[in-house]
Amino acid sequence: MPASPAPATDAGERRLVAVYHVRVEAAAIEARAKALVLEQSVEMPLEAITEQRILAEIVARVEGIRELARGRFEVRVALAASTTGGEPGQLMNMLFGNSSIQEDVTLADVELPVSLAARFPGPNSGVLGLRALARAEGRAMTCSALKPQGLMPSALAELAGRLALGGLDFIKDDHGLADQAYSPFAARVGACADAVAAASRKTGRPTRYVPSLSGNLDALRRQVAFAREAGIEMVLLAPMITGVAQFATLVRENPTLAFMAHPALAGASRLAPPLLLGKLFRLFGADATIFPNHGGRFGYSRETCGALAEAARAPWLAKRPAVPVPAGGMTPERVPEMLEFYGRDCMLLIGGGLLSARERLVEATAAFTALVERHARH
Amino acid sequence: MPASPAPATDAGERRLVAVYHVRVEAAAIEARAKALVLEQSVEMPLEAITEQRILAEIVARVEGIRELARGRFEVRVALAASTTGGEPGQLMNMLFGNSSIQEDVTLADVELPVSLAARFPGPNSGVLGLRALARAEGRAMTCSALKPQGLMPSALAELAGRLALGGLDFIKDDHGLADQAYSPFAARVGACADAVAAASRKTGRPTRYVPSLSGNLDALRRQVAFAREAGIEMVLLAPMITGVAQFATLVRENPTLAFMAHPALAGASRLAPPLLLGKLFRLFGADATIFPNHGGRFGYSRETCGALAEAARAPWLAKRPAVPVPAGGMTPERVPEMLEFYGRDCMLLIGGGLLSARERLVEATAAFTALVERHARH
Repeated sequence: MPASPAPATDAGERRLVAVYHVRVEAAAIEARAKALVLEQSVEMPLEAITEQRILAEIVARVEGIRELARGRFEVRVALAASTTGGEPGQLMNMLFGNSSIQEDVTLADVELPVSLAARFPGPNSGVLGLRALARAEGRAMTCSALKPQGLMPSALAELAGRLALGGLDFIKDDHGLADQAYSPFAARVGACADAVAAASRKTGRPTRYVPSLSGNLDALRRQVAFAREAGIEMVLLAPMITGVAQFATLVRENPTLAFMAHPALAGASRLAPPLLLGKLFRLFGADATIFPNHGGRFGYSRETCGALAEAARAPWLAKRPAVPVPAGGMTPERVPEMLEFYGRDCMLLIGGGLLSARERLVEATAAFTALVERHARH
Repeated sequence: MPASPAPATDAGERRLVAVYHVRVEAAAIEARAKALVLEQSVEMPLEAITEQRILAEIVARVEGIRELARGRFEVRVALAASTTGGEPGQLMNMLFGNSSIQEDVTLADVELPVSLAARFPGPNSGVLGLRALARAEGRAMTCSALKPQGLMPSALAELAGRLALGGLDFIKDDHGLADQAYSPFAARVGACADAVAAASRKTGRPTRYVPSLSGNLDALRRQVAFAREAGIEMVLLAPMITGVAQFATLVRENPTLAFMAHPALAGASRLAPPLLLGKLFRLFGADATIFPNHGGRFGYSRETCGALAEAARAPWLAKRPAVPVPAGGMTPERVPEMLEFYGRDCMLLIGGGLLSARERLVEATAAFTALVERHARH
């Protein structure tokens, strides 16, 4: 037996690694990396720190620097896990709080020790849970969105009913539907839940209505309670708007509810989309995460989308895989190509592309869902 | 009397104006502006909207397009005020939810109708209130920060006491201080409050300790309650991390407490800093708003900083003016220049620049505060 081996695993548990991409000249990268580790940990000059324990255990460390391209570097930074306090907001703060307002740096990735990851819920349902909800074995799941905002609850419900007749798995509120005077949350959710349930009885499919939540934590809790009363099993919210702490709290408080995350206000140019929408939203409990598919009206590349889907689904820290939901200007014509690209563990979300069919909405929706089912039998 | 004049004011109250900056070729700006108004309102093709009321009242409108420079345009968009539901998070969503993930657009400014602004609290104390707290008539206010994180409560308290002996107006927690195992919120805040109060009795100055809050709304409320018990009159939080709804809720629930906003996670390259840190944080209730001063370690220009201070203080929608707090790598040497630039209605925040003095901390702090007072007598 070796004498007193260093507790290697334990030491590994004390640090998380943040991976930054930095634009800077080669001659300046060493100094820039040193400034970055201070910015994201003690935020003061090293010379002004007197306590040895803080220098050893709290100050972040540069773990490695690698040139990605001329004038572009990857900097791996080891942050003390203890600084996060195991709290979602403080984790975001330690990862990118101050650096998010520096022009030359993006947060590209994060590697978490298992003991820190265990402090966050991860998805309640994940891929398998949503598949079970939708009874969608061996195929991709389907989704559309209720819009435009401004419609009265009765009009939204009528639309929801027609979409459900087309055989979708999920029908989500547009993320613009909040608690507005012309369409209060309770009236809207009650009406839409009833309409979808009625259509579901006709089609024999378990179509789920996914209402959008908004407001502070009190309002979010009231909305969750109302939704559960109405038989809702999945809800939508935008973690960057509600705050990630509120999101993770709702996930923990409602272990039998599924959660879909919306990317609104994610400012993706500074926080890598695969990290924020793939890993972090999953970490905090997203069962499904919406993102703009490549070739639509957002600027994400094919590579970004692939990496995002991978981040959401790959085995990671004992968290359930989350369902990637490519969206944003998608049309039924793109379904086969998307299924080739994302495989079956995804949910296809088509909103405007179906609503454009107007009086032929049910047929267009049915064609979309049939296309996905046909693909599964390949 | 003119016959049935159109209710012009009323109509003006129905829309808010979001001002975007868009990078695009001149030939494409009209189409890009049309896409932008749909993205930020109904998020679907106009052709698919059947209700006349929604086309007239809910769909956003391009109010004007102006070339700022070659390939760079200002697009003024009128959004329906009713779509915000008067809720802080939903206001952010309507202003920049989806567009924040499009590479070519930044949100530059917003113009709110008075009736919508009245749904948000604005600062409880503002410039006059903070001046009264600090008994700082006719001069700029001073502030420093407790760091590094990792220090135990007793060490933070000792540091706070020494800073207070130097005669500062405010001593804030570093925004990295959360509720960590080595420095739990209650232990830290109790110890620091006591230390500052003791030093304050010696100097005869009303130095205020400003603890940093974090966590979900439940945790934030517990922390506020504890802080008030400890005699705290001002707190710090980062609205982009907690979510703006939590921030505005705390402001409303604590009308006798002052609030300082931290820019962490603000991703300023996509949301104009004068808008987010100046106007919006003020709208939601920041009495003081911290931002990186030009010439420090962040990329804000002198013009950006000037515009931000102006946005925080200028008369606006019957909200109290908020105190601009330039910070980020500032040193006492820059005090005269900063006071020339920002005038007296500001708070100077120097953290590392004082802490670097180590055993001469009290003297360095006293020199800083004396400099500010001397400047006031000019």
